Amino acid sequence: MANINHNFLELQGSYLFSEIAKRRTKFIQENPDAQIISLGIGDVTRGLPEAVTKAMHEAVDELAQASSFRGYGPEQGYDFLIQAIIEGDYKSRGIDIQSNEVFVSDGSKCDVGNIQEIFSQDSIVAVQDPVYPVYVDTNVMAGRSGKFNKELNRYENISYLPSSAENQFKPSLPDRKVDLIYLCYPNNPTGMTLTKEELKKWVDYAKENNCIILYDSAYEAYIQEENVPHSIYEIEGAKEVAIEFRSFSKTAGFTGVRCAYTIVPRELKGLDAAGNEILINDLWNRRHTTKFNGVSYVTQRGAAAIYSPEGKAQIAELVDYYMTNAAIIRDGLKSLGLEVFGGVNAPYIWLKTPNGLNSWAFFDKLLSEAHIVGTPGVGFGQSGQGYFRLTAFGSRENTEKAVERIRKMSL
Amino acid sequence: MANINHNFLELQGSYLFSEIAKRRTKFIQENPDAQIISLGIGDVTRGLPEAVTKAMHEAVDELAQASSFRGYGPEQGYDFLIQAIIEGDYKSRGIDIQSNEVFVSDGSKCDVGNIQEIFSQDSIVAVQDPVYPVYVDTNVMAGRSGKFNKELNRYENISYLPSSAENQFKPSLPDRKVDLIYLCYPNNPTGMTLTKEELKKWVDYAKENNCIILYDSAYEAYIQEENVPHSIYEIEGAKEVAIEFRSFSKTAGFTGVRCAYTIVPRELKGLDAAGNEILINDLWNRRHTTKFNGVSYVTQRGAAAIYSPEGKAQIAELVDYYMTNAAIIRDGLKSLGLEVFGGVNAPYIWLKTPNGLNSWAFFDKLLSEAHIVGTPGVGFGQSGQGYFRLTAFGSRENTEKAVERIRKMSL
Repeated sequence: MANINHNFLELQGSYLFSEIAKRRTKFIQENPDAQIISLGIGDVTRGLPEAVTKAMHEAVDELAQASSFRGYGPEQGYDFLIQAIIEGDYKSRGIDIQSNEVFVSDGSKCDVGNIQEIFSQDSIVAVQDPVYPVYVDTNVMAGRSGKFNKELNRYENISYLPSSAENQFKPSLPDRKVDLIYLCYPNNPTGMTLTKEELKKWVDYAKENNCIILYDSAYEAYIQEENVPHSIYEIEGAKEVAIEFRSFSKTAGFTGVRCAYTIVPRELKGLDAAGNEILINDLWNRRHTTKFNGVSYVTQRGAAAIYSPEGKAQIAELVDYYMTNAAIIRDGLKSLGLEVFGGVNAPYIWLKTPNGLNSWAFFDKLLSEAHIVGTPGVGFGQSGQGYFRLTAFGSRENTEKAVERIRKMSL
Repeated sequence: MANINHNFLELQGSYLFSEIAKRRTKFIQENPDAQIISLGIGDVTRGLPEAVTKAMHEAVDELAQASSFRGYGPEQGYDFLIQAIIEGDYKSRGIDIQSNEVFVSDGSKCDVGNIQEIFSQDSIVAVQDPVYPVYVDTNVMAGRSGKFNKELNRYENISYLPSSAENQFKPSLPDRKVDLIYLCYPNNPTGMTLTKEELKKWVDYAKENNCIILYDSAYEAYIQEENVPHSIYEIEGAKEVAIEFRSFSKTAGFTGVRCAYTIVPRELKGLDAAGNEILINDLWNRRHTTKFNGVSYVTQRGAAAIYSPEGKAQIAELVDYYMTNAAIIRDGLKSLGLEVFGGVNAPYIWLKTPNGLNSWAFFDKLLSEAHIVGTPGVGFGQSGQGYFRLTAFGSRENTEKAVERIRKMSL
């Protein structure tokens, strides 16, 4: 038998959402009449914008005829989409991005999972805590995590940056030398953001300490307030230290359509073993073209349509719908005296569990008393213990019903 | 600056097809009136089957409405597609595959590139030579290749299994201990196949020598002759030693639509560092669900439609079209006295260059004298030197014109 990658054995149990599904299934078996409302997994529920489906239909028709057929496209994405991204998401904010800095992909989960491959095996990784599990798990698989310490609920070699109500979910800078820093803003799971000044501290730190920031901005479209940066490249010098990940999943309901993109600036450099400077963009380009074959043409046409005037209007409506849900949840829970975070510039509401309940105990209470499925904060890391995530992605009806049910609980 | 993955620096130059594009562009600049015919890159050109586009249109309509919207699907693929694959590609041939052994993905390039991640860093890799470059390059990135030896045109730690006219493109079994063996049948680039008896030797070898076979069968739909296995699992015991990769790219014109699948049998085991047996299926499932978010729903509906009676008939027509092209090229070149291989059970024609020309010299000759772009055999490995690949994926008109032009060359 061949030997396996033993790092996989350091992965902890199954993915958070499997455990949720298990408890949910058990509850339904025991309570077959319960009408469960899910405010758990961060998946959208509204239909695709009309501009998008129109473009997708047209693209399917193009592929039907040899005369307009398109086979393999550029692995980095079609120029029509790359130009739309540059114009719509960057130039419009005064940020200069070149077409060879944009890499279209089938999802940010893939990109944030794969990016670590181009860095050294012994890179020290820093993550916010709580954190989207993919950042950690993919570094575990690559052998960068060290052993898991069950008591601490943490990996030995990963640098955790705790976020909690105490620091307003704005983690301190690392207190030891790190190489790669994963930042997610607007944050999943807390729904919190940084101001430009706060983000500038991270960029400056990365410059001074030779780190690279992996900036996950999948929820950018939900930003409502001024002075919350839409891109890390709004910060001067960020192109020298940061890779940015963006997704159409939450922006335009693309969770089942699959499209995202990653910006790898040409200014960003790393060091080889001999101390020579190497362009990170070249490495990622090589990785992307070798292990990936481009996004579905139909999907790319759909994504480009988001940047049309109709597309923009329809997306704004979509975001509005979910953000109204967020306000309903946020205001509803606040009126019950709960301590609530997020939900202002993000579709996630992060609440402190009442009476010091731990996250899973609150999960069970919410499921059994209100028939609502949410996500235990501790599932995102030890600093999420005693917190709980609700999402604004449900229907209006279910969102309102959920808040009513929580109102009737004994909190 | 952060340190990079220094293994990337062992990658050799740019990808074969960039060099081809460069020479082609230069030629066009110098000969702006030349009508170039491309029989180079293995990309299809016919429109998608009607059954497929119909299903894709319906799927887009489903996504347009909240009531029928689908967001994240199972990372492993929707059950409707998995069941169609099991029934259509395996049960119909008497092979028993379970639904948890099928992993739908966005392309075989991704799967054959990613599969190495779940194996030990010090695995010894064997590849056929000539070979699809992705098998080698992804192992170089992972640090398994050792240094590149320019004189030999080979990596030090990779075990190459030469295929040439001398052994009828049926490489010998490895002569040293290897862990992972990449096999591709019908073969890219040679277009050659193995009989069941010949494939059985590999399965038996893998069993006796504790290797795992990574069986790339992306061109399975082109098999015409009896006794050529459509799946490695037609061979007894193969489920204990082989992973199989299949793609819809060449089967149904999906190169721009993106769908493939990989079979990882539950019987297949590996060893951890302590010598315990680990299910490879569990590892791949963990990798797939952590770093991938499922294939576009629209694409999956299109893929499932291939298995409908109309879909099957339309695909058969598509394959017929390309295989008639293959016969035209094969017979045409043979009638000129050229030594020609493949093209019987595969859309690739592999020819021995006339007068002992090296592969790139023949590339330049074909381009300048006949305005045809093909692929130099040496681009697939040292044993491809003196060979050349033509593909049957062009239009009928261009294929016939190409053969006429070659007929007028001084060979």
